[in-house]
Parts: sequence; C-alpha cells; structure tokens
Amino acid sequence: MEKISGTAGQVIRCKAAVAWEAGKPLVIEEVEVAPPEAMEVRVKILYTSLCHSDVYFWEAKDQLPIFPRIFGHEAGGIVESVGKGVTDLAPGDLVLPIFTGECGECPDCKSEESNLCSLLRVNPNREVMISDGKSRFSINGKTIFHFLGSTFSQYTVVPSGCVAKVNPLAPLDKVFILGCGISTGLGAALNVAKPFKGSTVAIFGLGTIGLAAAEGARMAGASRIIGIDLISKKFDLAKKFGVNEFINPKDYDKPVHEVLIEMTDGGVDRSIECTGNVDAMASAFECVRSGWGVAVLVGLPPKNAELKVNPAHFMMNSKALKGTTFGNYKPRSDIPILVQKYMNKELELEKFITHDVQFSEINKAFEYMHQGESLRCIIRMDD
Amino acid sequence: MEKISGTAGQVIRCKAAVAWEAGKPLVIEEVEVAPPEAMEVRVKILYTSLCHSDVYFWEAKDQLPIFPRIFGHEAGGIVESVGKGVTDLAPGDLVLPIFTGECGECPDCKSEESNLCSLLRVNPNREVMISDGKSRFSINGKTIFHFLGSTFSQYTVVPSGCVAKVNPLAPLDKVFILGCGISTGLGAALNVAKPFKGSTVAIFGLGTIGLAAAEGARMAGASRIIGIDLISKKFDLAKKFGVNEFINPKDYDKPVHEVLIEMTDGGVDRSIECTGNVDAMASAFECVRSGWGVAVLVGLPPKNAELKVNPAHFMMNSKALKGTTFGNYKPRSDIPILVQKYMNKELELEKFITHDVQFSEINKAFEYMHQGESLRCIIRMDD
Ligand SMILES: [Zn+2]
Ligand SMILES: [Zn+2]
Ligand SMILES: [Zn+2]
Ligand SMILES: [Zn+2]
Repeated sequence: MEKISGTAGQVIRCKAAVAWEAGKPLVIEEVEVAPPEAMEVRVKILYTSLCHSDVYFWEAKDQLPIFPRIFGHEAGGIVESVGKGVTDLAPGDLVLPIFTGECGECPDCKSEESNLCSLLRVNPNREVMISDGKSRFSINGKTIFHFLGSTFSQYTVVPSGCVAKVNPLAPLDKVFILGCGISTGLGAALNVAKPFKGSTVAIFGLGTIGLAAAEGARMAGASRIIGIDLISKKFDLAKKFGVNEFINPKDYDKPVHEVLIEMTDGGVDRSIECTGNVDAMASAFECVRSGWGVAVLVGLPPKNAELKVNPAHFMMNSKALKGTTFGNYKPRSDIPILVQKYMNKELELEKFITHDVQFSEINKAFEYMHQGESLRCIIRMDD
Repeated sequence: MEKISGTAGQVIRCKAAVAWEAGKPLVIEEVEVAPPEAMEVRVKILYTSLCHSDVYFWEAKDQLPIFPRIFGHEAGGIVESVGKGVTDLAPGDLVLPIFTGECGECPDCKSEESNLCSLLRVNPNREVMISDGKSRFSINGKTIFHFLGSTFSQYTVVPSGCVAKVNPLAPLDKVFILGCGISTGLGAALNVAKPFKGSTVAIFGLGTIGLAAAEGARMAGASRIIGIDLISKKFDLAKKFGVNEFINPKDYDKPVHEVLIEMTDGGVDRSIECTGNVDAMASAFECVRSGWGVAVLVGLPPKNAELKVNPAHFMMNSKALKGTTFGNYKPRSDIPILVQKYMNKELELEKFITHDVQFSEINKAFEYMHQGESLRCIIRMDD
C-alpha cells in the first residue's frame, strides 16, 4: 500500500479534470483541494469511471448548468486524511466514495426499508459541501464546484457518510465499479424485483445497469431473461450477463409489451426498466403478468416527465410498480458485502470492464460511452 | 342445522330479487334454479348484503347492461347439493360464496404470490356459468342472468371453486360479511400495505372497505391512522375502526396530499385508496413518504381511467404503487382462517353491521347505501 503522510491539514495541489462548460471536453488542470472539515474525509482517488449520470449533468440539457465543476462519482481510493469527528475511517483505509450516503442516525438509515439517508441522499444539484456550503476545490482562488463525489480528481473531499470502507485486500481496480451502476442494477433485481426461481424477467435497456440487472436476475434463478434494446448488436455482449432472449422493438409493428405478452403467454413475471424513457416505463408496466407482476423503474426520467398508467392494472390485476435508487443498497453497510461477494467469486465484475484509459485521456471515456460500445471504462489516475 | 334433502337433481322454485332494468328497484320474483352441473354447487342462501359493486353494475352507467340479472355476491348459506366431481363440499356444509374463485390447480392458485385464479377470477361481465355458457336461473323459460354469486336469491348455483367452506359452528349471520369488502380492506392493509408498528397510514374513503383497511392497519400496529373523506360526519363512526385523525379535503385550499405531507413532516408511511377516484389515487401516491412509502389501490376506477404519476417518485424516492383484489386473500384457503380469527375474538365484525332487513325489503338496503350512512346491511332471506 502507498504511503500517505505529511499532507493532512494542508491544501493539496493535484490534477483534476475540470468541466468548464456544459458539453465541452474536460480539461486536466492543477487544482487546490482543501483539507476535510468535520465529518469529512479527503480521499486519494486511484481509479474512477464514467457513468451516464456524469454525462447527463455535464451535458446539462435538462438540468441546472453548474460550472466549472468536477464530475465523477464511481471510484476507488485511499483515505488521505479525515476531519474532526470521523472515527470510523482512518488514513490508509481502502474506500469507495458513493454518490449517496448513509449517516447511520436518521430515520431512513435506521429503517430496514430505506436507503435514502435524510441527510446524505443523492443530490446531483448540490455543488458544495453540506457542512459549510463551500466547495473544497479551487484554482488560484476561483471556486470549482463539486458533483457527487467529484472523483475526476486525484484528491477529493466527501462526507464520511458517503464513503464505504472495503476489505483492504480487495483488488480496487475491479471492485471500485460497485460504486454506482452495477450495484444499482444488481440490487434492482435482487432487492426490489426479487424474481423467483424459474421466472421470466424483461430488462429494458442493455447498458451497464440493465446488464447488471440481468446478472442479478440470473443469480436469483430466473430462467428466461429477455433483453430489450434498440441496438441489436448488444445482444451478443448481453448473453454473458444471462440475457437469453432479445427483442429489438424496431423489428415489430406492435408495441413491445404486446410482443412480450405473446412470447410469454400472458406477461413476464418481473420487468426492470433501465432507460428512463417514459414509453419504455409504460411498456415495462404493461408487460408484467397479472397476479404477481412487478415492474421496477431504475432509469432516470426526463425532468417533469409524466407516466400514464391504467389504474385497473393495480386493483384488478394486482400488478405493482416500484422504483429504486442504488438498488436499495445502503452504501456503507452493504457495499462492503458486495465487495466480499466478488472476492468469494460469487459475483463477476471483470466482464463489465470493457475499456481502460489513463487519466490524461479521460475524454476518450466519453467517446466510448457515446459510441455505445462500452460498459465500464477504467480511468487510472496518474501519480 | 336445517335439514336439506329431497331437492338434489331437481329444479328448485324459490324467491329471488330480479333486476329487470338498470337502476330500477329489484323485484322479488319466483325463479327456477337448475341443479348444479359438474364442478358446481347449489347453495341455499341464508344471509346476504349489498356491496358497492352490486350497485355499480346494477346502475350500469359505465358498464355493459346485462339484464334481467340477479345481483348479490356477499353471502352465507348451506350447500343444498353438489354437481359431479365435487368431492370437497357436501350438502349441509356451511359456506360463503366468494365473487372470485380458487380452482387450486392453475399457476395462480399454485403461486403464493397471486390470488387471481386463472380460471375463476372475478369477472363481473360474465353472466352465465363457465362450464356450459348457460344460466341456471329462469322464470317460465326466460333466462335470468348471473352476476358473480347471484346471492339475491334463496338458492343460487356457483362453481365449487367459488365457495369457501367455513367452521360449521361459525355464526353465519356475522361471518358472511367476510365474503367481499371487509376482507378486501383488511387484506389490503395486512397483506399488501403491511404497515409497520408505529407507522402512519392514510385511508382514502371511509366506506366499508376503507374502515376495514383502517381496522387492518390498527391490527398491524399503525399508530396514526388518518381518514380522508368528503363527508365529515363519517369520522365519528370511523373512530371505532382505529381512525384517529381526519381530513375533509373540502376544508383546505391545497391538495390533500400536501396537507398530509405537512401533517406528517414528509409523508405517510402507507396509503390505501378505497374510492376509485383517479385524483384520490394520484394523491394517495403523492402523499407517501420517500424511502419506503407504499400506496395501495383498492377502489375500482372508472372504465378507461388514466392515472398520471411523476416517475421520479419511483426511482428517485423509492416509492411503490400496488393494487389488490380481495386483499390478496385466496378465497377458499384464507377465508376460513379469517372466520376462525373472528371466532377467536381476534377480529371484530359486529361493528360493520349497521342495518338489518328482510329479503322482501331488499330495496331498502340500496337506500341505506345511497344515504351514505350504512356499512353492511344484513339481508335475511325468508324461508
Ligand atoms: Zn441517514
Ligand atoms: Zn452513476
Ligand atoms: Zn363486493
Ligand atoms: Zn386457479
């Protein structure tokens, strides 16, 4: 393990990829990272990756434009120093910053039913630290804003409740990808959809989250896993994740839920919607079987979206519609368990890693995602 | 117990309340009731009551008009005779005809997750027996149609899968009301909403189903049970069923879900919608708390209703929207258990019985319901 010392309490100067404007390539800059305040930690990031929500808020088409900003939220690193009051983390700890937190004290954290910490739940429009309303990043005195964990920086500062401490022997360059999309998809299947053995599951959208949901469905014992995507070539890759049937809605004259209902003689047992498209959500609800069908919404809908459903499906057909953030995992409590599952070979992660770049080439990761052929691209932070 | 004999295999002439036209008072007529065919039973009805769905299909405002028809589906009686192949019921058995059935053999019946029997699930537009497409009722050769159990008749014929056999010692004039609305409301709370101890539950609509849902919430340990109804005087009666706070939406300038969110500092833990009004459904979903909120839809919506929801509530706030028919109880398996709970004094039924009429006065039951002051009105069949 790397030696970390001598920097506690001081401003660290390091490289970060700064988004100066919406949709413009990131620029590697030297930034100043202030020390952590009370209940915060400063983390040296070793690996990070690009997730769709980084792109969504970087493009800022439908969102508040908050710039200049440091994106990135799926990462692994080492605690460099901790602020006052942090007793459960120490310099040298192997950690995953998580975009949504767990304070451990609020009603949500104390409930077994919620993972949406009242204090630290995900807020992509928060651009400063909660404690003092200030950013920890600057360039020559000019404030650079946060976005979730702001992991596109060699050092970042996050609330200690947004950091999951993992097994120090874990291979960080693999397990760090449990910090967002993969756990979201896995948990959507394992914790929310809960397909029974031998069941049929439809997955809308075969990106990282959808494929992780398929993997979860496979782990739960589903026997038919039907992938739905507008890009047919995704089916080949999806087979590795348990998807064994495929529908491209473009190949049919009728709505995809009708195709699914016919294929399954009445509807699928579970559906998991990972695109955020409102029509796909409606189809995901329509396509589940009467009696026990459950549709789970995972994809982020556009702002002010409206989903229209026939209410008779609920009371007459006993269907259910659910949703989840981060697959219902509590970040600090549950992510270390998923890391352990990987180490016990109960969970495969390598197949999600399709690309690998150095930090200086971070904009390539945006290109790979744009081309639609990447799942996770490891971005290795330079020393 | 009454002696039943000598009529097996023969047509029985008896009194029934016939609806000749939509919305017109029922007329007591002498009808002929054919013997049960294979997998059917003929039941001598002793007690029945009027339920909102009888009125809904009798008014036929939004429904196929099917007349002349014998309504009624919540009842208790004694098996008079059984058709071929019926081995689990015998003349003399105390039974509740149930509007939705349980064949015991289909995928739904074999699943623990469903109570919507593929063969015998409720179908209010079915006017004849499934087996041969014929009615068992006639007057001088003219066909009179079925509606569910058609219990507004001294004798009726129903599929054996639509009959729950109960403890022969059960007081039938009390437990027969478990045949529809009360079990629907109780089960919506106990089996679907599943409020945790100390939780807050909002009940939309304080009719029989809503009050049974409140009773279920109370039994589950909910501590705040907030009733919502447009008629304020219902609150007094509702207190008997555990409702301890009340909102009349007419008393406020803002939408009722905003009132509820303020009253509860963030939203209720569970809501149960029993009116069928689409705006109330939307409020019931809006008013549940982020993190673990569940809204359960029980009320029958108008035909072609459309429910509009903000999909962000699912994926961002982890809310869930569910529905249920008959409170998720499997009629033949579970209703005898509820009857037993009543006999063990774990369940109160008397407080649901507000009126009592003889069969000849059956139209009074419609008036009581119309006046909005009755819960269940026992209709005693004359001999
Ligand atoms: Zn918390
Ligand atoms: Zn992400
Ligand atoms: Zn009813
Ligand atoms: Zn069945």
